[in-house]
Amino acid sequence: MPSFDLQYARALDARDPLAKFRDEFAIDDADAIYMDGNSLGRLPKRAMARVREVVENEWGKRLVRGWGEGWMDAPARLGGKIAQLLGAQSAEVLVADSTSVNFYKLANAALDARPTRNQIVTETVNFPTDSYILQGIARTRGKTITYAAPQNDVAISMDAIVHAIEKNNCALVTLTHTAFKSGAVYDMRALTQAAHDAGALVLWDLSHSVGSIPLYLNDCNADLAVGCTYKYLNGGPGAPAFLYVRRDLQNELLNPIQGWFGQKNQFAMDFDYAPAQSITRFGVGTPPMLSLLAMETGVDLLLEAGMKNLRAKSIQQSEFLIALWEEWLKPFGVTLNSPRDANVRGSHVSLGHPDGLRIDRALIEEMNVIPDFRPPDNIRFGIAPIYTRYEDVHHAMERMRRVMQEQLYEKYPMERPTVT
Amino acid sequence: MPSFDLQYARALDARDPLAKFRDEFAIDDADAIYMDGNSLGRLPKRAMARVREVVENEWGKRLVRGWGEGWMDAPARLGGKIAQLLGAQSAEVLVADSTSVNFYKLANAALDARPTRNQIVTETVNFPTDSYILQGIARTRGKTITYAAPQNDVAISMDAIVHAIEKNNCALVTLTHTAFKSGAVYDMRALTQAAHDAGALVLWDLSHSVGSIPLYLNDCNADLAVGCTYKYLNGGPGAPAFLYVRRDLQNELLNPIQGWFGQKNQFAMDFDYAPAQSITRFGVGTPPMLSLLAMETGVDLLLEAGMKNLRAKSIQQSEFLIALWEEWLKPFGVTLNSPRDANVRGSHVSLGHPDGLRIDRALIEEMNVIPDFRPPDNIRFGIAPIYTRYEDVHHAMERMRRVMQEQLYEKYPMERPTVT
Repeated sequence: MPSFDLQYARALDARDPLAKFRDEFAIDDADAIYMDGNSLGRLPKRAMARVREVVENEWGKRLVRGWGEGWMDAPARLGGKIAQLLGAQSAEVLVADSTSVNFYKLANAALDARPTRNQIVTETVNFPTDSYILQGIARTRGKTITYAAPQNDVAISMDAIVHAIEKNNCALVTLTHTAFKSGAVYDMRALTQAAHDAGALVLWDLSHSVGSIPLYLNDCNADLAVGCTYKYLNGGPGAPAFLYVRRDLQNELLNPIQGWFGQKNQFAMDFDYAPAQSITRFGVGTPPMLSLLAMETGVDLLLEAGMKNLRAKSIQQSEFLIALWEEWLKPFGVTLNSPRDANVRGSHVSLGHPDGLRIDRALIEEMNVIPDFRPPDNIRFGIAPIYTRYEDVHHAMERMRRVMQEQLYEKYPMERPTVT
Repeated sequence: MPSFDLQYARALDARDPLAKFRDEFAIDDADAIYMDGNSLGRLPKRAMARVREVVENEWGKRLVRGWGEGWMDAPARLGGKIAQLLGAQSAEVLVADSTSVNFYKLANAALDARPTRNQIVTETVNFPTDSYILQGIARTRGKTITYAAPQNDVAISMDAIVHAIEKNNCALVTLTHTAFKSGAVYDMRALTQAAHDAGALVLWDLSHSVGSIPLYLNDCNADLAVGCTYKYLNGGPGAPAFLYVRRDLQNELLNPIQGWFGQKNQFAMDFDYAPAQSITRFGVGTPPMLSLLAMETGVDLLLEAGMKNLRAKSIQQSEFLIALWEEWLKPFGVTLNSPRDANVRGSHVSLGHPDGLRIDRALIEEMNVIPDFRPPDNIRFGIAPIYTRYEDVHHAMERMRRVMQEQLYEKYPMERPTVT
């Protein structure tokens, strides 16, 4: 049973074996409590030096020769590092494009591989970009999307998904592995098996999973995956995404966007497209090297800290946060919108309140606490155990208690401004 | 008639009104003659400061708040600046993805807008990624590509293209505006008109045109365009690309990759896709902000120098290069693979030789001159008038003469290594 005073949190920090990693990050404002690493991770100090090197020496001095001196190989090389966080082989992961573009490529490739089947199974709690892209694909290709309904806003309904899969008609099952609102996590093994049982391929969006929980793509026999590098990987704003294609599927699947970075023997500049016989075929155009190489430093730090250690700390910090919520915030009508069971919860905790949007604003503006807000009522607190302290968790909850006690959110508007 | 000694080149530099812009670029190796700005432009000094600001202050200190403090608006804002180089309105250009991905999006959008038509007209001298992507689209959508044959490797055959367009069947005419091998430039106005006469849309790849020659997209009534920012715009390796959609077409055309950055009121996180009512609908995923914001400094410099001034200098430098080629290199069997007429030539000059690959290697390794090579025999010398000096042009040709005289290329292999 935790104690609720700051000294207890500080004692946990004092004996945290990962505490030293916080020094690897640029943290200028000691008062700021940053709880949004699930949206944009903090800046690794190494990234500052690496970006300077890339800009001033590689671009500035080596110029176009940089492509032969590391840039060209970087997407597959970094993919190999990320593979270690995914439970995948290094030749199965490529850094390329954005998560959305990668999702589009792999969803289409999967449908091409099951041409006589017409069903796509997914869920309504997907990250929006996945649903939007699927809607576009379904429209242009004449496919049907079946949305399995979640049990409620928190729990993910495995049964509903399995039930939705039509045995001889389902081409693709695609799910956001860790739900972006609630943080609930799917059983990858069971759902991959269920998709395979029906002859379908499975595509996982790992954006909120990679770097936050250990993953076992190979062990689960997962077919396809995409994910984001600017959240828990601390890759920097808009850092390029990754994609995973299981080794034995790589030469069977085609990239619908047949760009020159997927071409075999690219610089022969042959006239006809001939896809590379490797994960490289899922590349398209020239990758943004500043953003891509900056990202590597964040990945390195996670590998040094170790995913199992990070996960253990994440659970302990999330449990601490939930205990403080129960003591301090539940009395104000704040709900726990994440699963109570740590085994099916990622690394953020969503707290719900009808005034969530305004509470989020008040935390940021009045309290120097930075969570984020996702409609309708989720205030998300991201635990990034590589730099989050127990003390941060304590401050965040304590300051939110003040916001609730003093109703500091009342001066903020009820609605987010509309943008066209 | 130019003189052929170095003093003449230096005299031209001394009275060059754009000479001061060279100081805006990081140039550490005074001996190196960089003639590959057509592939990767040099590093603007301002980019060093800008990247440091973005990394250390925006990412490091503002963290996720950066999205509300400039990042979110940056793709359209930078698009507005690039629009000035294209002869387009600011609301017609967006920075997004790679050139290849943008080409895919707009080619598909054009085909969707002409659903009863089956023909795509293009040419064999396209940049490869455009041809590869078209081949993929034609395969999956059941369209036919007609490749109008160029007259020869240098001259672009306008007549052949116009002749290839089937009046009631052509959906899309798409061309690389400045040919990447020869540097030959199409007549945008005449070909756009020819496409429109047949009821087709036209999509221009401006990668080798933007920043190298003045463009008049609105004036030519061009429908669609894409282009690259890491060549003449000096945006940095793999800097994100741009796309142009004429104002009146924007709400008629749909982005086939329906990502959340194309969504109206994106952060409402609505379930159904509803495209933004602006150029923003052609965005997809989160843009790589380090690469994107670094690029702005290069665009600013071109706007300050002025496209007409840059073009005048580019022509004068190219003519100087060609005069030196004629005097020094033609006797060794080196051919001019670019048009002799400056009016139909972009800002690079291709010199041909059966040993071109080896000559290119010798220039780089032995002579500290950096052009590039494109099969089968093109050694490309890029003129980037914002930093290229007449002296550079002189050194490049003089050193190439030494390579030819002393056959310094003989020790290099005849073939590029094959990569799978």
